[in-house]
Amino acid sequence: MHLRIVTPTTATALDGAALEGLRAVLRPTTELDVVMLDQGPESIETEPEEALSVPGTLQRVAEAVRARCDGVIINCVGDPGLAAARELVAIPVVGPGQAGMHLASMLGGRFSILVARGRGIAAMRSLVARYGLQAKLASVRALEIPIGELRGGEERLLGALVREAQLATKRDGAEVVMLGSTGMVQVARRLAASLAEMGVRVPVVDPLLSAVILAEGLVSAGVSHYRSDPTSPSMPAVGASHPSAHAL
Amino acid sequence: MHLRIVTPTTATALDGAALEGLRAVLRPTTELDVVMLDQGPESIETEPEEALSVPGTLQRVAEAVRARCDGVIINCVGDPGLAAARELVAIPVVGPGQAGMHLASMLGGRFSILVARGRGIAAMRSLVARYGLQAKLASVRALEIPIGELRGGEERLLGALVREAQLATKRDGAEVVMLGSTGMVQVARRLAASLAEMGVRVPVVDPLLSAVILAEGLVSAGVSHYRSDPTSPSMPAVGASHPSAHAL
Amino acid sequence: MHLRIVTPTTATALDGAALEGLRAVLRPTTELDVVMLDQGPESIETEPEEALSVPGTLQRVAEAVRARCDGVIINCVGDPGLAAARELVAIPVVGPGQAGMHLASMLGGRFSILVARGRGIAAMRSLVARYGLQAKLASVRALEIPIGELRGGEERLLGALVREAQLATKRDGAEVVMLGSTGMVQVARRLAASLAEMGVRVPVVDPLLSAVILAEGLVSAGVSHYRSDPTSPSMPAVGASHPSAHAL
Amino acid sequence: MHLRIVTPTTATALDGAALEGLRAVLRPTTELDVVMLDQGPESIETEPEEALSVPGTLQRVAEAVRARCDGVIINCVGDPGLAAARELVAIPVVGPGQAGMHLASMLGGRFSILVARGRGIAAMRSLVARYGLQAKLASVRALEIPIGELRGGEERLLGALVREAQLATKRDGAEVVMLGSTGMVQVARRLAASLAEMGVRVPVVDPLLSAVILAEGLVSAGVSHYRSDPTSPSMPAVGASHPSAHAL
Amino acid sequence: MHLRIVTPTTATALDGAALEGLRAVLRPTTELDVVMLDQGPESIETEPEEALSVPGTLQRVAEAVRARCDGVIINCVGDPGLAAARELVAIPVVGPGQAGMHLASMLGGRFSILVARGRGIAAMRSLVARYGLQAKLASVRALEIPIGELRGGEERLLGALVREAQLATKRDGAEVVMLGSTGMVQVARRLAASLAEMGVRVPVVDPLLSAVILAEGLVSAGVSHYRSDPTSPSMPAVGASHPSAHAL
Amino acid sequence: MHLRIVTPTTATALDGAALEGLRAVLRPTTELDVVMLDQGPESIETEPEEALSVPGTLQRVAEAVRARCDGVIINCVGDPGLAAARELVAIPVVGPGQAGMHLASMLGGRFSILVARGRGIAAMRSLVARYGLQAKLASVRALEIPIGELRGGEERLLGALVREAQLATKRDGAEVVMLGSTGMVQVARRLAASLAEMGVRVPVVDPLLSAVILAEGLVSAGVSHYRSDPTSPSMPAVGASHPSAHAL
Repeated sequence: MHLRIVTPTTATALDGAALEGLRAVLRPTTELDVVMLDQGPESIETEPEEALSVPGTLQRVAEAVRARCDGVIINCVGDPGLAAARELVAIPVVGPGQAGMHLASMLGGRFSILVARGRGIAAMRSLVARYGLQAKLASVRALEIPIGELRGGEERLLGALVREAQLATKRDGAEVVMLGSTGMVQVARRLAASLAEMGVRVPVVDPLLSAVILAEGLVSAGVSHYRSDPTSPSMPAVGASHPSAHAL
Repeated sequence: MHLRIVTPTTATALDGAALEGLRAVLRPTTELDVVMLDQGPESIETEPEEALSVPGTLQRVAEAVRARCDGVIINCVGDPGLAAARELVAIPVVGPGQAGMHLASMLGGRFSILVARGRGIAAMRSLVARYGLQAKLASVRALEIPIGELRGGEERLLGALVREAQLATKRDGAEVVMLGSTGMVQVARRLAASLAEMGVRVPVVDPLLSAVILAEGLVSAGVSHYRSDPTSPSMPAVGASHPSAHAL
Repeated sequence: MHLRIVTPTTATALDGAALEGLRAVLRPTTELDVVMLDQGPESIETEPEEALSVPGTLQRVAEAVRARCDGVIINCVGDPGLAAARELVAIPVVGPGQAGMHLASMLGGRFSILVARGRGIAAMRSLVARYGLQAKLASVRALEIPIGELRGGEERLLGALVREAQLATKRDGAEVVMLGSTGMVQVARRLAASLAEMGVRVPVVDPLLSAVILAEGLVSAGVSHYRSDPTSPSMPAVGASHPSAHAL
Repeated sequence: MHLRIVTPTTATALDGAALEGLRAVLRPTTELDVVMLDQGPESIETEPEEALSVPGTLQRVAEAVRARCDGVIINCVGDPGLAAARELVAIPVVGPGQAGMHLASMLGGRFSILVARGRGIAAMRSLVARYGLQAKLASVRALEIPIGELRGGEERLLGALVREAQLATKRDGAEVVMLGSTGMVQVARRLAASLAEMGVRVPVVDPLLSAVILAEGLVSAGVSHYRSDPTSPSMPAVGASHPSAHAL
Repeated sequence: MHLRIVTPTTATALDGAALEGLRAVLRPTTELDVVMLDQGPESIETEPEEALSVPGTLQRVAEAVRARCDGVIINCVGDPGLAAARELVAIPVVGPGQAGMHLASMLGGRFSILVARGRGIAAMRSLVARYGLQAKLASVRALEIPIGELRGGEERLLGALVREAQLATKRDGAEVVMLGSTGMVQVARRLAASLAEMGVRVPVVDPLLSAVILAEGLVSAGVSHYRSDPTSPSMPAVGASHPSAHAL
Repeated sequence: MHLRIVTPTTATALDGAALEGLRAVLRPTTELDVVMLDQGPESIETEPEEALSVPGTLQRVAEAVRARCDGVIINCVGDPGLAAARELVAIPVVGPGQAGMHLASMLGGRFSILVARGRGIAAMRSLVARYGLQAKLASVRALEIPIGELRGGEERLLGALVREAQLATKRDGAEVVMLGSTGMVQVARRLAASLAEMGVRVPVVDPLLSAVILAEGLVSAGVSHYRSDPTSPSMPAVGASHPSAHAL
């Protein structure tokens, strides 16, 4: 099968090591590629950047069908454009936020999400509410590290993750920890190992890995999402305004 | 004060009668104008159309500050771009979905929302969940009338609204009815009157009217929404992708 | 329009400065007056005092219709008698607790309420539950200052509010702060200003101001609450017990 | 032990047969008496009547301590004044609404409440929400029979109860049925018997019986409710207004 | 009436003092006895031990009917086998977890549960969720004392309980405290007394005592739980596997 | 990898066609086998039968580790023994109820579950509550067909499923349908096809297929569930009672 990851920004797709980390988990026969946007924000750290990533993302999702992909993953934990993308195409479209939260919900009593910055907490809580999982959420905690440093896998990042993961389990009662950022598969493994060494044995959920596994499972099972109108064209027209109406 | 309504489509702003209906409710000193998008979908009937309306809407919200507006209303019941718009500007940005649902929630035990088509039900329920009002929702009911006919105020539309409003109160236990579409202030009044004639005395909430009243109240009280980062620039850059990254 | 504030106690109506603060926010054509109870508790600090304020409050609400008022506000954050008052009259009756909580709910992710004393926490939580807003509540925090000092606007009060508002945002994740007492419009403004100076930019919601704005909006829009029986008399008879029944 | 039932009206205490029905369930050594209000509404069919019953009810609860009662039951399914009464006295004060809903919640998956009239549905739902039991509620159904006829135990009442109880189990998925009115212990038994004859084997919960059992259990176990301030006087003063304040 | 307590382990039934403590609360005419399992785990500290206690427990519940018992209490706060036991027999079967949580829910705003060890927290939260009482739960706190020491009533246990009960009320906002272990009726009393001496006046709920009171109340009222199939045999057959099926 | 399905009964493991249906979805390198219980109920149609299946199921789960399995699936939609099994072993243990509900929750707005008989509705709702997914549940509907016929894949079964799935989507607002029984992979496909032919395009979720996919994904990703005590022995001892204790 052919799965495509759509990274909803223009500057970073997914580094080669992360991609290899995902491929190592999938079936040998599953092709996995990554595309970025032609037009969009450089990175997604705020709600406006996330919103501005949606048109380009929908374009990439619609293209994926023409490229005969069997499934698409949107590479951002906020699942930008997920509901709209699912109306556009019949093949499974998967979001790391939704996939990761549901996986975390299944692996223990309550889960905590570790986000890069405090400003991301409310958006993450809003996503949890939209998916109906509020009762399973222990907390959302912020590392307060700039997102640029998050991708490097540095020791400083790992230290912050270990600290907040421990607080999540000790103070907030979390039994599962989910990373609040994609593209960090190796970091998730190192975090789990570091915690285990310290005697804190909690599952660590990587959202992008969760999404890729879910997409592969859905394609192999032949099941996809609900669409309110399966006959709708794959991309609505976006045009300029009509002068007459402007006169109002 | 100066309030601006941003209609997130290119073909329909707000007809003159509806605008007059809103003005009649506001203070004499409140200026109210309506702008459409330069670039965007013709109408919003689906999730993809709603998503594609967001970039143009954010542009219009950012412009409103430069035009010295005191508050902005997004003229669509799905509140497209509301969370992102609030991060962009310090003046109050109000969504008719949020304003209408909270008003409906205050006027009785549980409320029902009447949407144009069945395909809109899930999106409306998702919005209710995001706002945390699930316990106050009696039902979302569909009229199954094309959205084009909704704006005309015809008898057929009114008939369908009366029928579904009655079912909402009788079968679903609604004590308040909210219209699931904006631009229908006069229809809301006629619906309330028709129901009253039939002995069904339930408040009818018009979402756009609710939003306009809320915006006027917030501006006069000098209160606005929370912003996670008040120092952020008013519009993030959207650029083309970097060739090097594309090579991945 | 003519709005009446019913203060449900016998000793304190609303000081002149607070009343002027409210009037400054309303339309120039809106008349606003305040009445106290003829018979009732001196102040409301406990559940029994609140309960004993209801009969006098209902009397004042019924009188408001005879005085041709267009709307009534009950001046206590616990909304004493609100549900009963709405059954009595057709004009809008608004409670500061309900109005403030719904406004706070709209302005950010989760809100905290700052009450005067620890004993008020459970009653406030119970009100939040009754209104179905539990998922939007971050915390209820107590200042532990006697209610008498709350009305003065003193520095000590402001200091306690600033301290608890900071804890609400830092520890409880609140993005909006609501005062848990009415009659403090100026204090709300000062609190917002003090927090902003310290870099804590959260909306501060004053419940009485919220209620007055809501009442003005409802009256101008011609919408009121649901009544289960619009034909019921405006005040039920309260008589002495029947001897025969007493013999049981 | 000595338990007192406070009927919060002036015209009906509890008929002798109902009182005997309750006594038959209690310990032989438990004294049970019933008092009405000196001053209050004749019956409780509306929210205003319920509100006006509270001052007299609190008076009776405070008296019960002086009469050396060990526990008090408020004889109305809306639990008028329950939260306030518990602040007044240290002996257990029990409400039939709360006791019945919690018992119903324990006896099966979800429960339905059968109220006399449609106008009572919203108040009952509001009570369920306040007690945090919404997830256990299947439905509230109205018999649409005047409350006067409810007390008679007539065949017409039983027929309506059987019909609605069947609909509650078949359509709403109820596994337990609770009567939405007190003073009907015998009716509850007859309803259970009639349903069993028809093959509908659901527990039928009588709220007053539930309250009496709970009160007896609490007294015998030496446990009572939480009071926010155990040192408060048993009844707050209710006085006339101060002329000076009136001048505002 | 004859009530039977089924202790779902093989090594500890209920010590004589605890049994006397319960008897002192019941009616003089109520017989109370305790049986253990013939086959089962020695104690219940983990989910597997709890699961392995169920078959023996169901056996004891079925026997109780043949022994003409009027009601059965399962002596473990996790309510092992409760749902299954209720399908087996028509007489009331009561669980201390369910009875204690509902009683705690009625006595104040929110309650906390004090369990012996951290590993019990998730199971207790899961039980609260199953019973639909999540909104009433303030916290579950662990004493981190081995369960063996819990039964002794030692000073060390009491000290830990006092400490955690104080934290529950101060930090978590609990107004009621429930013990998370059965067989500690005297400890509950001592805990309440110790807290009261320190000025912390919260009701302390003992789960087994709650269950015994509920069982006595249900039997005297002639009400029992819902059974999905009242005609089912009292114990399903448990046999060896069929060789043919094994060949698969 | 090696996955083992534990069928928690003694008479039916999984028919060959169903097993082949599952294998066709898995990786070619995944071994899948099925074991039954040595000792247990013949089938699981009631709560007592489900409870009695747990000891044998735990035995099989513990054995799976010794047989070097990489993951275990419990083949019953009620997930008997799931929480206990996860405490016993470190390899992933997956339940079809949990896996199917979470998958259904991700594929659309709300989901309905179709169970064989009305008596299964309450247990299924209880499971949904335990997993915290109540807000995503549209309904649980019963086919009222004996469980024996469910496994045959007959036309009658398919007709009943089509009828209830249509009612779930039309009346209850379901966007996803989940089968409430395992071992019916082919039936799920036929149901989806029949609905699609009728224009009802909803995803149909098979719980056992969901569980198998989840298990394969967890094993390949190297993630497992939370265990409260990773050092506990894999099976607790179950012994006979001690005579001395019996003397109580």
